Amino acid sequence: MTRPNYVLRLSCPDRVGVVATVTSHLASRGANILEAHHFLDPVSARSVLRIVFEPDGTTLDETAFGRDFGAAMQPLGIEWTLRDLANRIRVVIAVSKQGHCLMSLLHRWSTGTLPVDIVVVVSNHEDQRRLTEWYGLPFQHLPIGADGKEAQERRLLDVFHAARGELLVLARYMQILTPAACRELEDRAINIHHSFLPGFKGAKPYHQAYQRGVKLIGATAHYVNEDLDEGPIIEQAVERVDHTCTPEQLTTIGNEIESVVLNRAVQWHAESRVFEFGNRTVVLR
Amino acid sequence: MTRPNYVLRLSCPDRVGVVATVTSHLASRGANILEAHHFLDPVSARSVLRIVFEPDGTTLDETAFGRDFGAAMQPLGIEWTLRDLANRIRVVIAVSKQGHCLMSLLHRWSTGTLPVDIVVVVSNHEDQRRLTEWYGLPFQHLPIGADGKEAQERRLLDVFHAARGELLVLARYMQILTPAACRELEDRAINIHHSFLPGFKGAKPYHQAYQRGVKLIGATAHYVNEDLDEGPIIEQAVERVDHTCTPEQLTTIGNEIESVVLNRAVQWHAESRVFEFGNRTVVLR
Amino acid sequence: MTRPNYVLRLSCPDRVGVVATVTSHLASRGANILEAHHFLDPVSARSVLRIVFEPDGTTLDETAFGRDFGAAMQPLGIEWTLRDLANRIRVVIAVSKQGHCLMSLLHRWSTGTLPVDIVVVVSNHEDQRRLTEWYGLPFQHLPIGADGKEAQERRLLDVFHAARGELLVLARYMQILTPAACRELEDRAINIHHSFLPGFKGAKPYHQAYQRGVKLIGATAHYVNEDLDEGPIIEQAVERVDHTCTPEQLTTIGNEIESVVLNRAVQWHAESRVFEFGNRTVVLR
Amino acid sequence: MTRPNYVLRLSCPDRVGVVATVTSHLASRGANILEAHHFLDPVSARSVLRIVFEPDGTTLDETAFGRDFGAAMQPLGIEWTLRDLANRIRVVIAVSKQGHCLMSLLHRWSTGTLPVDIVVVVSNHEDQRRLTEWYGLPFQHLPIGADGKEAQERRLLDVFHAARGELLVLARYMQILTPAACRELEDRAINIHHSFLPGFKGAKPYHQAYQRGVKLIGATAHYVNEDLDEGPIIEQAVERVDHTCTPEQLTTIGNEIESVVLNRAVQWHAESRVFEFGNRTVVLR
Repeated sequence: MTRPNYVLRLSCPDRVGVVATVTSHLASRGANILEAHHFLDPVSARSVLRIVFEPDGTTLDETAFGRDFGAAMQPLGIEWTLRDLANRIRVVIAVSKQGHCLMSLLHRWSTGTLPVDIVVVVSNHEDQRRLTEWYGLPFQHLPIGADGKEAQERRLLDVFHAARGELLVLARYMQILTPAACRELEDRAINIHHSFLPGFKGAKPYHQAYQRGVKLIGATAHYVNEDLDEGPIIEQAVERVDHTCTPEQLTTIGNEIESVVLNRAVQWHAESRVFEFGNRTVVLR
Repeated sequence: MTRPNYVLRLSCPDRVGVVATVTSHLASRGANILEAHHFLDPVSARSVLRIVFEPDGTTLDETAFGRDFGAAMQPLGIEWTLRDLANRIRVVIAVSKQGHCLMSLLHRWSTGTLPVDIVVVVSNHEDQRRLTEWYGLPFQHLPIGADGKEAQERRLLDVFHAARGELLVLARYMQILTPAACRELEDRAINIHHSFLPGFKGAKPYHQAYQRGVKLIGATAHYVNEDLDEGPIIEQAVERVDHTCTPEQLTTIGNEIESVVLNRAVQWHAESRVFEFGNRTVVLR
Repeated sequence: MTRPNYVLRLSCPDRVGVVATVTSHLASRGANILEAHHFLDPVSARSVLRIVFEPDGTTLDETAFGRDFGAAMQPLGIEWTLRDLANRIRVVIAVSKQGHCLMSLLHRWSTGTLPVDIVVVVSNHEDQRRLTEWYGLPFQHLPIGADGKEAQERRLLDVFHAARGELLVLARYMQILTPAACRELEDRAINIHHSFLPGFKGAKPYHQAYQRGVKLIGATAHYVNEDLDEGPIIEQAVERVDHTCTPEQLTTIGNEIESVVLNRAVQWHAESRVFEFGNRTVVLR
Repeated sequence: MTRPNYVLRLSCPDRVGVVATVTSHLASRGANILEAHHFLDPVSARSVLRIVFEPDGTTLDETAFGRDFGAAMQPLGIEWTLRDLANRIRVVIAVSKQGHCLMSLLHRWSTGTLPVDIVVVVSNHEDQRRLTEWYGLPFQHLPIGADGKEAQERRLLDVFHAARGELLVLARYMQILTPAACRELEDRAINIHHSFLPGFKGAKPYHQAYQRGVKLIGATAHYVNEDLDEGPIIEQAVERVDHTCTPEQLTTIGNEIESVVLNRAVQWHAESRVFEFGNRTVVLR
């Protein structure tokens, strides 16, 4: 019989004995560490840890474990979360008209290589209903109505909460969230920006890239915050291009990069690998 | 006996028969085309051509060829240059204190893989004299004196012209050229910018990249123009980095990218591959 | 009114005047060259050309053009093909159980960014029927029956010819073609190999890569020939990996690379950019 | 006053409590962990750890620390090494005629960005004496004499030991080490192979790459073992090439990749990041 795998994600101010305290507690409960990664961020003087372990036995009483573990961590000011890796996080995807990122997420999800549960796809347009339903997933059309953008955003957040969403993925969702929504979704919303940040911001970056004659184009996945296109970067990638590429071809190449980058960011988030420090992230891989 | 290889670089407004006129003229002189590349830029509606050929015989009377060729091209408004690839362009390198780009250029030059003649290295500091002279090249120290920056820049331009320089390479030269110098050196000065343009501009981009937690860093080689760090891009490259990289390590990685990118840009310019269209370049490879 | 764009693809032994003869003929018919690329391969001493032009008028009488053009090319031994870029090549895709390459091709095709007509998908398994039909395309199940592999292969070739296929794309089709089929499909069948050739050959390359602890994995698209996994390479790409990647994760990453590489190879073939020289290709981009 | 940074490198069979035992011991001595990385290799069922710490105070009595630490580790079968990061490892570089890798190592060393002490450069040729001595380093010419290759190899090993070398870097040293020498230098010799392993083996890989028309070329740094070009891979990189690249140009591009890859491998080894598992490596970054 295989044992469940748990991931612990910890963060605390730098002090002597953090790793020892955590790992000793685990050892005292017979937990076997499969992977451990500690990093002391020199800028913020905070330590982050990610530990994957299997418990001493085929099940773990999470409540009892959490009570004891929390008591042991409390004196050192350690913030922590525990997750059974078999309990996948619940993801809500928001899209507008374009489907390349959605398709890539759904494909990876359907083949079991994106370790999340996609629970619902929401959109201000109908275009991606057919694709979504083909994968057997519910599609919610949330058009911007006479009551305006903020009311529509409220409906989106209601869907997210009703679905018990843990992560909102903006997979080329072309509406800008209000500051209030950004705060409500803090650390729980990932956007794909179709440019290599910092770089071309705002609309039509591939057309901007074309005008500028760049030799590489890229994409950036980042947490959403109140500064448009400026949230903490989780992942980036680029591809080489040249003068023969039309804006349309740049867009095609860029779409592929976006899909790959967004999948990676969602996966790393789901695996509890991403830590935020102000406007930076640390990804423990 | 081997024949010399000539490169023709042509540019003209789009019209029917340009390629035919050029290649027919060459064929009528018995020239054998080794490589030909034509591109019609849809934005500017200008055609560019790069043709490498060997003449009909072991030598070419360049003056006679030029007179005939020019007469044939004139009705179509074709601008052109001809270069015997064995006559390497004369390059002046400007540096400040850091030597990584200089070292890379000198190494490639000394091994015969950078097809240029480096004629002199100039600097506002003495740091790179020893390296330069080790390669048997003259080093000119041009400090910024009591007469100010513009006077020093004038001395630099005088050295460039006295050396019959055809290309000025700013290999981490930390002085900003005046608009007048930019115009004087138009299309004849290449700078290496230690960032992936557009992106972090100005000073200390690797420190900015660190603060922002980017996952890739890069460098950009571009022609110098009056807009600082905004000239037409010739080449760019990036490398993957992560949170464990200190600003110093980012700088080391970035320095390697800069060297590679600058070498490529200089080589492509020397091989008559780079065409400028406003703020874009077309590199015919 | 826009004019059609034609692509000419030419190949011949090296001799003086090839480019001139071709382009002069085009100019004499009023054709406007949009793009021209000539390369003289030093190993085979053969010239290849790719020319995109628009005719003098809104239509071209292809039969008349071809008769005249052929007569003009014949004395120089020039082999050529002409294609109206709006007449997309007819592609047959063969798959087995895995659908990632198929999905990527269908998605790019459906968004108009892969310039081919996919006419039928064939498979020795039923797994990809649902996906194929969702895109409104016919799916032919060609199981390997009691009459053996060669009979099934014959049925596949019959489907290819009945569909007037111009290119067979082996999008993770796990059957090895017989030498006879390879010859029948010469220059008209592209395979995606899930490794960076030369490298791990044969089955389970990602598992081999894992055992060997490689730091990069890749994929290779190549024309099919009688030497398994050894045909002329059209495109390759790699991605960085590390020790934490399980064979399953390497497979996921590799699948993404395969999809991107196969799409590029099919597109370049469809755009008449790929020339074969024995076991090498020249891709005029 | 800054404290010294120590790096612990540990390896042991998988068992519960390894990380806890190690980190608790460090905590009990007041050591502050700056970085910790644990990986349980699923193939070999061995755990590896790399821990960077600063001691409780401005100095560490290494002998006393080692005695206590060793006693604590012994029951769990943990193999370990301790290094003060300020005590750089002593590196001997072997070259033949080509200097690009040597130059790159010396440049990085001279700028303080390659954390090793280069103590001597040895060669079977005189070509790199001038460069080496320019950097103020001793150069030992060890020609292959009348007494044959093995005697010369013996002299090389004698120089290595006399210099108290800790790592031998074969920076394009074109002699194949005997099996006996490979065993003598086990885990202490790094070679740069001018190909993307597995791939083109043996001599002239860039010419092989040219003949095969590859679209990417690469280089591989690996530990030396008795299987030529088959040792555990430490690092690899590739660069995109095309049909216009002559074998000489491929060589130039390849040389750049080799230099970058070899530098990284030497740095990671020097920072105690590389662990060997049979023919694989784990690089804890």
